[in-house]
Amino acid sequence: MVKKFNAITFLTDFGDFYPGVMKGVILGIAPDAKIIDITHGVEPQNVYQGAFLLLHSYRFFPPSIHVAVIDPGVGSSRRAIAIECKNHLFIGPDNGILYPACVDDGIRRVWKIIEDKTFTFASSSTTFHGRDVFAPAAALAFEGKLEDVAEEIETEEMKKLELYDCRVSGDEIHCRILFVDRFGNAVTNVPADLVKKLDAKGFYIGSAEFPLVKTYSCVEEGEPLALIGSFDTLELSVRNGDASRTYDLKSGKVVLKWRK
Amino acid sequence: MVKKFNAITFLTDFGDFYPGVMKGVILGIAPDAKIIDITHGVEPQNVYQGAFLLLHSYRFFPPSIHVAVIDPGVGSSRRAIAIECKNHLFIGPDNGILYPACVDDGIRRVWKIIEDKTFTFASSSTTFHGRDVFAPAAALAFEGKLEDVAEEIETEEMKKLELYDCRVSGDEIHCRILFVDRFGNAVTNVPADLVKKLDAKGFYIGSAEFPLVKTYSCVEEGEPLALIGSFDTLELSVRNGDASRTYDLKSGKVVLKWRK
Amino acid sequence: MVKKFNAITFLTDFGDFYPGVMKGVILGIAPDAKIIDITHGVEPQNVYQGAFLLLHSYRFFPPSIHVAVIDPGVGSSRRAIAIECKNHLFIGPDNGILYPACVDDGIRRVWKIIEDKTFTFASSSTTFHGRDVFAPAAALAFEGKLEDVAEEIETEEMKKLELYDCRVSGDEIHCRILFVDRFGNAVTNVPADLVKKLDAKGFYIGSAEFPLVKTYSCVEEGEPLALIGSFDTLELSVRNGDASRTYDLKSGKVVLKWRK
Repeated sequence: MVKKFNAITFLTDFGDFYPGVMKGVILGIAPDAKIIDITHGVEPQNVYQGAFLLLHSYRFFPPSIHVAVIDPGVGSSRRAIAIECKNHLFIGPDNGILYPACVDDGIRRVWKIIEDKTFTFASSSTTFHGRDVFAPAAALAFEGKLEDVAEEIETEEMKKLELYDCRVSGDEIHCRILFVDRFGNAVTNVPADLVKKLDAKGFYIGSAEFPLVKTYSCVEEGEPLALIGSFDTLELSVRNGDASRTYDLKSGKVVLKWRK
Repeated sequence: MVKKFNAITFLTDFGDFYPGVMKGVILGIAPDAKIIDITHGVEPQNVYQGAFLLLHSYRFFPPSIHVAVIDPGVGSSRRAIAIECKNHLFIGPDNGILYPACVDDGIRRVWKIIEDKTFTFASSSTTFHGRDVFAPAAALAFEGKLEDVAEEIETEEMKKLELYDCRVSGDEIHCRILFVDRFGNAVTNVPADLVKKLDAKGFYIGSAEFPLVKTYSCVEEGEPLALIGSFDTLELSVRNGDASRTYDLKSGKVVLKWRK
Repeated sequence: MVKKFNAITFLTDFGDFYPGVMKGVILGIAPDAKIIDITHGVEPQNVYQGAFLLLHSYRFFPPSIHVAVIDPGVGSSRRAIAIECKNHLFIGPDNGILYPACVDDGIRRVWKIIEDKTFTFASSSTTFHGRDVFAPAAALAFEGKLEDVAEEIETEEMKKLELYDCRVSGDEIHCRILFVDRFGNAVTNVPADLVKKLDAKGFYIGSAEFPLVKTYSCVEEGEPLALIGSFDTLELSVRNGDASRTYDLKSGKVVLKWRK
């Protein structure tokens, strides 16, 4: 692997402090690496959310190394992997978090990271593989030395994850809220294509109706609405308000009703 | 416009995740741009607060491009603009957020950003112009190519916003709390000059008195105080405590009483 | 001091916005400095927590300048100092926050920062020395010009702070919770060595038992556990849960019971 990458990005559920330490480790190995935080605010251990946010961020970057760590199995026998794709390299635990982005970019080769080898670059813990495994692997990959701590495995061995697993049944859509942003917009996994195919004009949660519109300003302030958002999926919102708080929308499975 | 800028800064109410995506877009166009987050924690859609924080941060930077997006009107017909000033370039929606900083730096030229042209650099959405309009415009400006996606308009067409709109009436000051920081300090828009002119010695909210002092250590721990803070305006604080929580101080209009 | 440093890191309790302003000041003086945020989320004015997090982050960096500002005494007569150590330079208030990291790295020389001199680089306030004192000092040090705003003092004059002040008394360990992370893990100051010496097999808070295990997956989901975490001290956790919320664990002094 001789590709040159533009940056190393981070996407984790680590919150505060831990990402700073990971940057120290990166900097010690790859002093010229540009490090970009995509988010450290994924809901703790929500692998689905992490996979969704990774898919919808990586593609806006020039060729880069993306470290995505939502890792309920840290310290267990779950594998740490690196996926070489058409344009990008993805690094994280083998629990599905990387899969949708990798498929989107085009999988080329899959590597298993050998933890005992990465441990020599930072420290050895059973709880913080962001620091002790993934950061060293990413920095070495940036330097073109992933092979020092990883060995190639078969691509079929990678754990899969299906993000767009929604199902229409009569006037119901069984789907997921994958992300609630700071404005209280509830981002679902219902693709724009499906909304178009159904020719849906509005959606219901309980008795609340979210009419499908083009943009926020199509309804009055404080009114609910649905639109195709920046993830190219259905979002439920309140204009200049907070749909999540008003309608108790949280990430997880949800059943929407829809109408023509 | 051939000026070289030191950095691209971000000031938004986007919270988590979205700024990471914007950085990807920037990096794809301007790989050498240094990107600095001023804040992504402005209260959702609080244009006043954004304008205040922009004014009091830009001036500590060497000549830079400042992207400030508090944008309740995203997707509507509100304009996206770029303001070339004496030292800095400001980019954001034309809703007043940029105005106080631009006047402070000295307005030279105003540009209207043509959204259809920026859309080709990222994606086209009605909800995330940080990614699809402002990030491409900023990155192109960093590369000296703002003209590719913007056209000059008259400077008078820019929306104005008055930050220091406080009014003294007898023993009352009708003013605003513009920012409550993490320590619970309530930062008002009452300028140091006005406090000096009044020769005020203390301030009241309800029956609570905030004596005017030089620094926190002038009162006992847990006691309220007022001082001229780092924004060069009046701040209400509690020494090693949280004035916002103790006295229920929130951003918005407020009436203070004052005494000689 | 002619050493070249890799980066300038920040560790503060400033929360949002203020760190962005500090970066502007740095960039104006040292345009090539790489700035890394370790955290701005230290509990307000919790000097112990700041000292602990600094100790456990600096050592993962290549030689750098670390600015750590938890500063309840800002504006009072407390000194601003810079500590030249074996590999790193530490800058902050002289209240003990820098001490454990400096001892760990090896103290060489101690400098007193002259505030009146730093004020010319940003502004002069009694409340925001991050911007007006520490950022200019760090940027000048990065440029090899710390002497412009600092004078050497005796190393003995530095304020000390003991992080690992825990005490065993029968079946009790009087210790501290120094950090609660985003997952609700409660990180104590009980060193791995002490746990080993005691040959402890489990810990109690009230009637809740935290059995000592190697890693999270050794217990069932939702069950409490204790392990030696990434700080090389005892941590109290719940597997895929939140120990802090479940058992009301907060930073501060605590008494644990232990058993063989």
